[in-house]
Amino acid sequence: MNKRNVVGILALFSLYGCGEGQGVVEPEMVAEPASGPPNIVLLFADDMGYGDLGSYGHPYNRTPNIDQLAAEGQRWTDFYVAASVCTPSRGALLTGRIPVRTGIYGDQIPVYFPDDPGGLPAREVTMAEALQDVGYRTGIFGKWHLGDAKAAWPTRHGFDEWLGLPYSNDMDWVGGRTVEEAMIKYADPKLEYWAVPLLRSSVTADGYSDETLEQPAQQTTLTKRYTEAVIDFMRRSGDQPFFAYLPYTMPHTPLFRSAGFVHRSLGGRYGDVIEEIDWSVGEIKQALFDLGIADNTLVIFTSDNGPWLAMKTEGGRAGLLRHGKGTTFEGGMRVPAVFWWPGRVQQGVVSEIGSTLDIFATVAALAGADASSAVDGVDLAPVLFAGEASPRNEISYYRGSELYAYRVGPWKAHFVTEGRYRQPPEREEHEVPLLYNLMIDPSERFDVAADNADALAIVIAAVQRHKAGVVIAPPELDKKLAVGAG
Amino acid sequence: MNKRNVVGILALFSLYGCGEGQGVVEPEMVAEPASGPPNIVLLFADDMGYGDLGSYGHPYNRTPNIDQLAAEGQRWTDFYVAASVCTPSRGALLTGRIPVRTGIYGDQIPVYFPDDPGGLPAREVTMAEALQDVGYRTGIFGKWHLGDAKAAWPTRHGFDEWLGLPYSNDMDWVGGRTVEEAMIKYADPKLEYWAVPLLRSSVTADGYSDETLEQPAQQTTLTKRYTEAVIDFMRRSGDQPFFAYLPYTMPHTPLFRSAGFVHRSLGGRYGDVIEEIDWSVGEIKQALFDLGIADNTLVIFTSDNGPWLAMKTEGGRAGLLRHGKGTTFEGGMRVPAVFWWPGRVQQGVVSEIGSTLDIFATVAALAGADASSAVDGVDLAPVLFAGEASPRNEISYYRGSELYAYRVGPWKAHFVTEGRYRQPPEREEHEVPLLYNLMIDPSERFDVAADNADALAIVIAAVQRHKAGVVIAPPELDKKLAVGAG
Repeated sequence: MNKRNVVGILALFSLYGCGEGQGVVEPEMVAEPASGPPNIVLLFADDMGYGDLGSYGHPYNRTPNIDQLAAEGQRWTDFYVAASVCTPSRGALLTGRIPVRTGIYGDQIPVYFPDDPGGLPAREVTMAEALQDVGYRTGIFGKWHLGDAKAAWPTRHGFDEWLGLPYSNDMDWVGGRTVEEAMIKYADPKLEYWAVPLLRSSVTADGYSDETLEQPAQQTTLTKRYTEAVIDFMRRSGDQPFFAYLPYTMPHTPLFRSAGFVHRSLGGRYGDVIEEIDWSVGEIKQALFDLGIADNTLVIFTSDNGPWLAMKTEGGRAGLLRHGKGTTFEGGMRVPAVFWWPGRVQQGVVSEIGSTLDIFATVAALAGADASSAVDGVDLAPVLFAGEASPRNEISYYRGSELYAYRVGPWKAHFVTEGRYRQPPEREEHEVPLLYNLMIDPSERFDVAADNADALAIVIAAVQRHKAGVVIAPPELDKKLAVGAG
Repeated sequence: MNKRNVVGILALFSLYGCGEGQGVVEPEMVAEPASGPPNIVLLFADDMGYGDLGSYGHPYNRTPNIDQLAAEGQRWTDFYVAASVCTPSRGALLTGRIPVRTGIYGDQIPVYFPDDPGGLPAREVTMAEALQDVGYRTGIFGKWHLGDAKAAWPTRHGFDEWLGLPYSNDMDWVGGRTVEEAMIKYADPKLEYWAVPLLRSSVTADGYSDETLEQPAQQTTLTKRYTEAVIDFMRRSGDQPFFAYLPYTMPHTPLFRSAGFVHRSLGGRYGDVIEEIDWSVGEIKQALFDLGIADNTLVIFTSDNGPWLAMKTEGGRAGLLRHGKGTTFEGGMRVPAVFWWPGRVQQGVVSEIGSTLDIFATVAALAGADASSAVDGVDLAPVLFAGEASPRNEISYYRGSELYAYRVGPWKAHFVTEGRYRQPPEREEHEVPLLYNLMIDPSERFDVAADNADALAIVIAAVQRHKAGVVIAPPELDKKLAVGAG
């Protein structure tokens, strides 16, 4: 066997007998850690689908920088978000807690809209706060979407500074809000259709400096300006370790890119936008080398949820996965994920299970920070740095407060489904859950519950354990309905 | 822009204005050609889908050798076969002529079955004959499927030697031929279910040496034995240039792999089989280096048609492409394709249009052989060796004698469709053709004929030119019906 180019980190799934004892790589020499806690760069795309990158199989979007990051680091095939829409996914990322535990979700309202009351509750501890506590400089350059009231701004939740949008780039429509109008605007996006503001905020000696830089935000420049801002932030950090969070506004529709990327991609406007994000990743990587800190920086690239299929050719692709954003099928919640840290992250394609929920715990362990609040995450260090099995073997798929599906090893059971492939959403409860073996049926096509009673029982037992460990908080995002009624 | 890792060979499609003038790479220094005509190694998988390799986005099938070949050479995103089933696809590959021109197709019978009369007509010139004529040694190690009558065997069509199966590995069923029986056998394949013979034939001084090596063929050993045979053939070639054709029996169902690959892949039995083919490619590449001939050998890896979706988890995946084998959707006729020749083939991901029809002309030009009969192919040298645009801008999608669809640049028009995504086949004629822009809609989801009358007119004009250049030969594969009736 020619093993030159494979790191066969195989899952030691308890239910997947044939994987056991095979292909597990001996831990290689791990380079000496560079001095001091590492810098963390977290790159977070918006609605980028599982199939949108070259390294994940897209035929036309050219993403050489992200693909190279993947080739030099780890490219994960089974990495998840904790919700299939923006706000709860971001809340889970920053807290390491599932949405039903924090309350950052809604059963009526899926995400925060402009002027909604509330926002990320003060009781929650963010990754930024934990890192700030151990001496990190913290900056966010991009979309927040955890409440636009000032009390909910990122500078009130552990970030020293922020440049970005308070919510999605398609909110604040100009001239009415009918669905018909929206679809016309999405299909032929023009800057004047959206009035979303670009904000800047920082923590000062005596409080906060908050300003609206421009309104409407010049969306064609956002990817470029976020990139410049994060590089400037890294440069200004000097010897202090930093946490830089770059939640791109793109490729969420409406699609905007700077002049150099117009008609650049074979994949159309969506491809242009993806390729500008890829450019951004290349610029940031180069800056890490230029600043001489690449060997002490962990870079993570992932996405907040699956592709928005309703946007047709203005949206992304889930590759061979079923469905997209807004659903609990794999296309909704499994996302591209790349980890890179030269000399530390072991190279390879990884099919261990991971989640954005785990980033807080993983990063905190490296920084010596307190992650005790991040109870739904695990430290992925064994996979990243030693090529060992993941401490995570389960994924919960919630929609609002309801657990729709659950994965244990290769087995995924659907208790409720909503959203069919290429058909209008339609809620369906399954008295006998649908059961898929994701490893041999990644597209969730063949229900095998009838032939795998043991596997189904194991998933159901895991669900009972999971539920016993969760107190469901009231939905923060639905609060405005109560306000409106009051 | 960081361009280190991209060779942005963009299509200069006449209909795709936005691609023009952008991203076209200056031709790089082409290495001095090694002395003498190059060796040709043509690796041809059976029913391998567009999405089955790691480099084409499969999450679980690990194919590091093919992926590395792709990284060192060219990986094509828009490479086609001339028919979506086995026999006509192979006939077109070897002759450089579309099936309706050669007659190697059927309107009633899609492929050759055991004991069918006829086979590849003697009037046709194969790539092997053309190369033989200019001094090449020629060998085929694998599945023929162009007629099992001895007059149709590969040794009668330009190959010096053959080890392999006469047809698909699921023919010659033991114990009845009902569909129900077949499905049970496919789902739990055992060697004793199939009696397909393993044949050996060679050209001798006074004719041919033909023998049945074993019956049933020990299918678990086929990938390994083909690989050993092709390496032995290369070794025995000495200083003579050679053409080695390896049409794998796998991953056509029933799926068999050797002991070392059982339960090896995360992707199940199908993944095991893919990974054994990947092993084979690695062995062959290593042998080329060991023999000191890597720098004078063109290696081509591709597949005969899309994945057999009806086989469920025993079949392959078309990734984000629509449908599979047997249809004229992209999933049926677009296949993985890798070209490798160290120092000669320019590295990169290529979205130019190519076809197995072009391999004859391309190879003949390198060998100084006569390809005048291969009228449906073009020489892909400009793309392979100079990073220029493809001489091919059109693809015809036939089913039997009927032209179902046609592609010009990014535009594909469907005149007839048969086989819907995840639904039973159903013939539908489109008075107004369906029109898809494959570059922004690779999954063929959004018919845009109504908004693109000009593009549709251009495709229709191209179809008229195409049809004017073809005299449709009677279907060779249907001849047994006439025999049976006579």
